Amino acid sequence: MPKDFNENAIRISTGPLPSSRKIHVPGTRFPDLRVALREIALSGGEPPLTVYDASGPYTDGEVTIDVRAGLSKHRRDWILARGDVETTDSGVLRAKGGGAVTQMAYARAGIVTAEMDYIAVRENLGRAAALEAASGSGRDGEDFGAEIPDFITPEFVRDEVARGRAIIPSNVNHPESEPMIIGRNFLTKINANIGNSAVTSSIEEEVEKMVWSIRWGADTVMDLSTGADIHQTREWILRNSPVPIGTVPIYQALEKVNGKAEDLTWELFRDTLIEQAEQGVDYFTIHAGLRLAHIPLTAKRVTGIVSRGGSIIAKWCLAHHRENFLYDHFADIVEICRSYDVALSMGDGLRPGSQADANDAAQFAELETLGELTKIAWARDVQVMIEGPGHVPMHKIKHNVEKQLALCGEAPFYTLGPLVTDIAPGYDHITSAIGAAMIGWFGTAMLCYVTPKEHLGLPDRDDVKAGVIAYKIAAHAADLAKGHPAARLRDDAMSRARFSFRWRDQFALSLDPDTAMAYHDETLPAEGAKTAHFCSMCGPKFCSMKITQEIRDAAESGMAEMSEKFRQSGGEIYQPAAE
Amino acid sequence: MPKDFNENAIRISTGPLPSSRKIHVPGTRFPDLRVALREIALSGGEPPLTVYDASGPYTDGEVTIDVRAGLSKHRRDWILARGDVETTDSGVLRAKGGGAVTQMAYARAGIVTAEMDYIAVRENLGRAAALEAASGSGRDGEDFGAEIPDFITPEFVRDEVARGRAIIPSNVNHPESEPMIIGRNFLTKINANIGNSAVTSSIEEEVEKMVWSIRWGADTVMDLSTGADIHQTREWILRNSPVPIGTVPIYQALEKVNGKAEDLTWELFRDTLIEQAEQGVDYFTIHAGLRLAHIPLTAKRVTGIVSRGGSIIAKWCLAHHRENFLYDHFADIVEICRSYDVALSMGDGLRPGSQADANDAAQFAELETLGELTKIAWARDVQVMIEGPGHVPMHKIKHNVEKQLALCGEAPFYTLGPLVTDIAPGYDHITSAIGAAMIGWFGTAMLCYVTPKEHLGLPDRDDVKAGVIAYKIAAHAADLAKGHPAARLRDDAMSRARFSFRWRDQFALSLDPDTAMAYHDETLPAEGAKTAHFCSMCGPKFCSMKITQEIRDAAESGMAEMSEKFRQSGGEIYQPAAE
Repeated sequence: MPKDFNENAIRISTGPLPSSRKIHVPGTRFPDLRVALREIALSGGEPPLTVYDASGPYTDGEVTIDVRAGLSKHRRDWILARGDVETTDSGVLRAKGGGAVTQMAYARAGIVTAEMDYIAVRENLGRAAALEAASGSGRDGEDFGAEIPDFITPEFVRDEVARGRAIIPSNVNHPESEPMIIGRNFLTKINANIGNSAVTSSIEEEVEKMVWSIRWGADTVMDLSTGADIHQTREWILRNSPVPIGTVPIYQALEKVNGKAEDLTWELFRDTLIEQAEQGVDYFTIHAGLRLAHIPLTAKRVTGIVSRGGSIIAKWCLAHHRENFLYDHFADIVEICRSYDVALSMGDGLRPGSQADANDAAQFAELETLGELTKIAWARDVQVMIEGPGHVPMHKIKHNVEKQLALCGEAPFYTLGPLVTDIAPGYDHITSAIGAAMIGWFGTAMLCYVTPKEHLGLPDRDDVKAGVIAYKIAAHAADLAKGHPAARLRDDAMSRARFSFRWRDQFALSLDPDTAMAYHDETLPAEGAKTAHFCSMCGPKFCSMKITQEIRDAAESGMAEMSEKFRQSGGEIYQPAAE
Repeated sequence: MPKDFNENAIRISTGPLPSSRKIHVPGTRFPDLRVALREIALSGGEPPLTVYDASGPYTDGEVTIDVRAGLSKHRRDWILARGDVETTDSGVLRAKGGGAVTQMAYARAGIVTAEMDYIAVRENLGRAAALEAASGSGRDGEDFGAEIPDFITPEFVRDEVARGRAIIPSNVNHPESEPMIIGRNFLTKINANIGNSAVTSSIEEEVEKMVWSIRWGADTVMDLSTGADIHQTREWILRNSPVPIGTVPIYQALEKVNGKAEDLTWELFRDTLIEQAEQGVDYFTIHAGLRLAHIPLTAKRVTGIVSRGGSIIAKWCLAHHRENFLYDHFADIVEICRSYDVALSMGDGLRPGSQADANDAAQFAELETLGELTKIAWARDVQVMIEGPGHVPMHKIKHNVEKQLALCGEAPFYTLGPLVTDIAPGYDHITSAIGAAMIGWFGTAMLCYVTPKEHLGLPDRDDVKAGVIAYKIAAHAADLAKGHPAARLRDDAMSRARFSFRWRDQFALSLDPDTAMAYHDETLPAEGAKTAHFCSMCGPKFCSMKITQEIRDAAESGMAEMSEKFRQSGGEIYQPAAE
């Protein structure tokens, strides 16, 4: 790593979340696997709750983090064991003799990889068997035709990847990553965007932003750096990231031609792809679906082209009056991805930037082209997901999913929000979490977060957290509504903790224990209040929940006797805080 | 006002929002009416945008606020002119000889009141005529059977109130209020809850919370005080509130019996209703639908009874083993409401408090009873709305609206959220804004806000604002999706401002201009940046929007010539910030 990392510049966030510890579960086909999950200890006789954990070794009390050394390259042995990669002089791994080293190629060959086995255990949250559905009466949800099994087997993972309905972003040069899957029949995932721009922000800050975003639950991270040190920033992020890293390679290509889009060439872009594939980038956003003929369709739009990649390409097409070179060279792009297992994230360069432009001809013309390109990538065993909007009013969201599933052969959908109104800058993590929860429910596999700074500035550390939490809410709400068999376990544990006033358990079970505890303590800072038998909303004098205990007795012992017993007992429902 | 108000204790928030001024539009049938609206001045040749404005005289630069004197009693003349009220010795207005002075009674008699005329102008946002639909191609939305007209006439308002599909909360003893309507075929409204509890908070703070919540858009405010000075706090709030004030009278009744629910009596409750009706409370939450027989249905719930009013009633029923006295005396309650025009908000004492309990037998048994009671109130010309949940996963939300519309004869629905997951305490303004946007779209007329402190503590001023903004987003997203003819005007104005980099216009058009500007300035504080031709996200080097201008030219002048012209022009898309 040529450029040095200044550890004094910033603190990397480490350590477990409250009442939590990292556990490791063995694989079913690969017993040596150590599948990382988070176990939350509970009181009141409740068993511990195991939850999905994207935060990597940073929240493992047993691990000492050394950013300079990077994370353990635990996947390297699995990769080498497959015997299909060669090592270049610079130590880079690459497919031997034009072969495919993609998870899709293995899946289609009937091979269950260690990555697939890891994912099966991870998606089951460490469960060894199928659950009784949380509702007690079969699957409780509406999945709009998804096929979510009660229990994920490695074979199911393989089949979904083989069909192209799910992807496992896992570049052979990013052995530090913990395998994860993006697909409609798995837990809904979220992505956090980081990256510096002309407006300064240091490499150290970006590494901490990555660590901070996965601490709160980001499943993948995109490095959208456009400023100085793009290569170095990415290197530090990759070597320290346990989650897949995505990029938009055209941003770096544009820097190489000093921001003059018309000077971009296929050769320069190709070299940029190879540079990033060799570094270990797990997925590329490629705006190959924006064709010359689509550009006039944007002429009457209220907000035109709002995708940066899309506008770079549009500018190039205009300057040369030629077809998009990414479209013309798509087969060559696919060959590069095939040699390192870089997944393709098909960019929606013509996504709407306002309610007015939602679901218009330009957006859907590009989506149709993305469907064609998906088949080209699949023919060469390259994994694909499809990017989606953007800004869409609620009544037009479902149509986006239906069209994407139909045009793109059920390739995973990956949307930015969508924002359901344009009038709340400063709160677009909320305007977009509404659309994200709905589109996730309808079948979107991964939700790209939006922070409160959207449309206004670059997100800082607090904005990153606000965006990640809002999107964890949206993704989890989607899993609940789809009827994911295990999704409600955490809600039910929280509800039981509320009902029995186990405040510490409520904090531990929440998406952001620190904030929940801080808010509670503003009203009732006393340590005793942590076990008080009342809510801080109503104060000690009266609380609505205690009574249900009495009601339960009543239901059993009969109303008449109960009312007598109740009056004799003094009919008191108050509990001293000390008790 | 016996207890004095300490002006030094707190500052009341006054003054117009950025680039905005209060305008007053005359009525159509009552030319003397001065319907208050907010006009936002825009640059770049854009006409000013008129928006709905619930903030009252506090944002009127022409008005001097004197909290001690209270707001102008502008409705008093309209009320007296109807000649159907008498004045008690204490100066309270009340219906003469058991008559009905409700807006519903007038509506059914074919009378268009000043209130109805005011509302028609207000709901049209001052428009004098129907608009071309924003989409340009007819109504753009899905309204699930609502009947939203292109233009609201006073006669339409009268008809909706007569049918019970909308209510106008307007106690004859609250002449300070600006008429507003709650109904599925009008703009979606939001309510903010304030009120102190055993945990201290002063009268002055509560008055400022009311003013602060309407400044950001609360359409009604509920005073849920349970602590000391309930009567005085309410008096100060009512005399200074331009929006309808709602209460849960059983909270004050409980204070009168020192918190012992079993000591509640009908007589004591009746006297409390009259006390509050005489003060001017515009709507009462009454938990009359929770019957003795429903209580055992909650025995197996995960979170039992979470409504405070519901649990008070349940406790009373258990202690006496008798039917809910609010149910037995409902006809008497209706007579009181009829004499002052207090609207009934039928409380959902058995609303679910967790995802696990959503849409269960207890919830729907109570809803059925609320439907019966609605008919009793309507038979005596008393206005009614129905309260709804609570905690509901996305796939179970729509069923709530369909059942409520069917069981309650289309009386307006008024829901608390719902929260679509239980695992995010500290962020329940977001978990519930997702459910609120959806249930508003499906047909809920008013959304009761939830703040970040829900489940953790009492909201402070910042929490009130966070809750109100989140709910303005939800309500507006619902209006957009329903296809409200004027809803998208503000989104489109914002989008045009974005596209032409009119930053000040973007701030002025946003729900929270202060926050939008502050976030923008964090990245680009320079005054010049306010008119810079680039986004603070990408910095001056490159911006995606400028190019669309070139694309528009291209679409017209033809690609080939354009690419030439474009290259000759240097192909530059950058704009100096100074320009």
